[in-house]
Amino acid sequence: MKGVMYFDQAASSWPKPPAVMEAMMLCMQEYAANPGRGSHQMAVKASRALFETRKNLAKLFGVRNPNDISFALNTTHALNQAIKGFVKPGDHVICTNVEHNSVRRPVEYLKSSAGVELTYLQHDVDGNMQLNDLKEALRPNTTLVVVNHSSNLLGTIMPIAEIGEICKAHGAKLLVDAAQSAGILPIHVTDMNIDMLAFPGHKGLLGPQGTGGLYIHPDIDLEPLLHGGTGSQSEAIHQPTVRPDRYEAGTQNTVGIAGLNEGVKFILAETVEKIHEKEWAHTQRLMEGLLGIAGVTILGPKLGQNKTGIVSFNIQDVDSSEVAFILDQSFQIAVRAGYHCSPLAHEVAGTLSKGAVRASVGYFTTAEEVDALIGAVREIQTQYVK
Amino acid sequence: MKGVMYFDQAASSWPKPPAVMEAMMLCMQEYAANPGRGSHQMAVKASRALFETRKNLAKLFGVRNPNDISFALNTTHALNQAIKGFVKPGDHVICTNVEHNSVRRPVEYLKSSAGVELTYLQHDVDGNMQLNDLKEALRPNTTLVVVNHSSNLLGTIMPIAEIGEICKAHGAKLLVDAAQSAGILPIHVTDMNIDMLAFPGHKGLLGPQGTGGLYIHPDIDLEPLLHGGTGSQSEAIHQPTVRPDRYEAGTQNTVGIAGLNEGVKFILAETVEKIHEKEWAHTQRLMEGLLGIAGVTILGPKLGQNKTGIVSFNIQDVDSSEVAFILDQSFQIAVRAGYHCSPLAHEVAGTLSKGAVRASVGYFTTAEEVDALIGAVREIQTQYVK
Repeated sequence: MKGVMYFDQAASSWPKPPAVMEAMMLCMQEYAANPGRGSHQMAVKASRALFETRKNLAKLFGVRNPNDISFALNTTHALNQAIKGFVKPGDHVICTNVEHNSVRRPVEYLKSSAGVELTYLQHDVDGNMQLNDLKEALRPNTTLVVVNHSSNLLGTIMPIAEIGEICKAHGAKLLVDAAQSAGILPIHVTDMNIDMLAFPGHKGLLGPQGTGGLYIHPDIDLEPLLHGGTGSQSEAIHQPTVRPDRYEAGTQNTVGIAGLNEGVKFILAETVEKIHEKEWAHTQRLMEGLLGIAGVTILGPKLGQNKTGIVSFNIQDVDSSEVAFILDQSFQIAVRAGYHCSPLAHEVAGTLSKGAVRASVGYFTTAEEVDALIGAVREIQTQYVK
Repeated sequence: MKGVMYFDQAASSWPKPPAVMEAMMLCMQEYAANPGRGSHQMAVKASRALFETRKNLAKLFGVRNPNDISFALNTTHALNQAIKGFVKPGDHVICTNVEHNSVRRPVEYLKSSAGVELTYLQHDVDGNMQLNDLKEALRPNTTLVVVNHSSNLLGTIMPIAEIGEICKAHGAKLLVDAAQSAGILPIHVTDMNIDMLAFPGHKGLLGPQGTGGLYIHPDIDLEPLLHGGTGSQSEAIHQPTVRPDRYEAGTQNTVGIAGLNEGVKFILAETVEKIHEKEWAHTQRLMEGLLGIAGVTILGPKLGQNKTGIVSFNIQDVDSSEVAFILDQSFQIAVRAGYHCSPLAHEVAGTLSKGAVRASVGYFTTAEEVDALIGAVREIQTQYVK
């Protein structure tokens, strides 16, 4: 919206590169037919849009075969497919206490419905984990370890490659929730021993909402979450085994995926490294400014430490919703307040009673916007708190 | 695509009303924030877009409380949510032999994995069912009856209200697959005793791909297919019971749903009755023309009978893929060939060996296009067959 300074990038990135919208319009106007469901020119063009996007995602994530990536409605869909499609009764699953509800609720569901055993690794107040805790938590029946690449509340970055090595040595599979890292941090599924990677299309990848996906290592076969038409092997009574069809029942979001493709191309051109560098610089500027205001406390990694573009903070004991409301109404600054679907992370950070204000920066955030946010928080602290 | 005559409306409708694209662009440019995940202006606007769409869908389908409608990636997603969320081990499920794979595969999955009992009602060659067959198939443990409102191969229209009455009398729930009828045939969930209604956004409702939804009667509680963040009750370990959150984990496809809203508004303004009348007239024109060509046979209801905008046909024993290929390459006419994800329906129609060419009309199909298709089929018959 005009005049709005948008610091809710961790919920959904905005604005998008213009090419994203252009690709979506072109799709709607020229070839919004059903991909893989017909052989006429428009359907072929729609199929090609999906495959191009798959190819670019594979390039970004170090995936050898693009067909090992299947599209999903959102990261939650991808995580549910991975978790429920993989875990069997009697299995032991390890995750962390900074997981989003998109991991916590599926694993808790399996715990209560299928008797799956569950361990949450305890992170320190900044969201950092001890690799030794993981090693000690592993059991003979541990089949899956689920970790987010970066906490959506704290911005802490997990040592995925090291976790991957430990999992591999033990024979457990590693599922990474890249909700806050896809398009923001380097990800290479082979080098990092990632067996499954769930990612959103509408956050760091700069695509539209309604997109996301799941990479599945070729050796892993999941029970599909959705059974239905695939456009292939129509006569078969069961879901085909061929990928990506096995995990893509029903009509895919062609227009959204065509937009996502442009987001991914933008990132491949800019490079993840440059994007992270820019976002990190802005978090540091923001943290430095906020820390200069009396009574402001920041959750997660300290100034100077590596993290993603998330700065969660509180002003003394003021309710986070109130701060967010004032920022929105009086300063046209969009942040998010509350629990961010991560109650355990709030326990970690000691903010379970009041939540936190989360300001998240993106690639298009400017230094001027950061300074405006700092100024606004200072004004709130001065005028409203005392 | 320019110059293409598009007869694949049953797979995905095209073109869309211009307002659909305009609403999508406005969303991307102005308020592509995360609905229900923040209280700032952009997030509120995104939430409102979802609610407006829900309200208009409720109006179209005779649903009292818009929150009884939850959004989904596609009809397959909605059907999987309904079927897997409702059916329990030991249940008996009835469906028909003209169901799409989006129904057949989930119920077959439950049959093989959870020992669910399954009956397929046998339809006649035109896809019509006998209500008495349904009555006779009901068992004490029949909990769910699943029927498509209109066959995606034959265009046959099922007597939903009568089926609903029989189900109600027996205490079984009725799930209707409205993939081929939403926005095309009158649907009123209360009057027709529909307990659950799964519908696509990108077909008769004229919205973009990546949208669809499920109406669930307020008395029915389903186990959610997706567990995850809902933006509400973040601190709860289990999926909230409040609707629509219970069935909408993760970020919804705001941009797609904003587009869908315009499609639904278009339909509410034109009226479903007028749309069906127009489409039926075109099917009759097409059938009459095709029946005038030697060797052409048409599947499903006879000339003059009620049906949706689907005309599936064969030219003698020519492979349907070949006919579709020639229509595409030489005449710029887009149709679909093959099995249409409905192998059982092909058994019904006696076309399991060769499939069928499916030409489907939509609201924007013109009489000139219909005549061009007839002319092309005549030319193929003359030049290629003999």
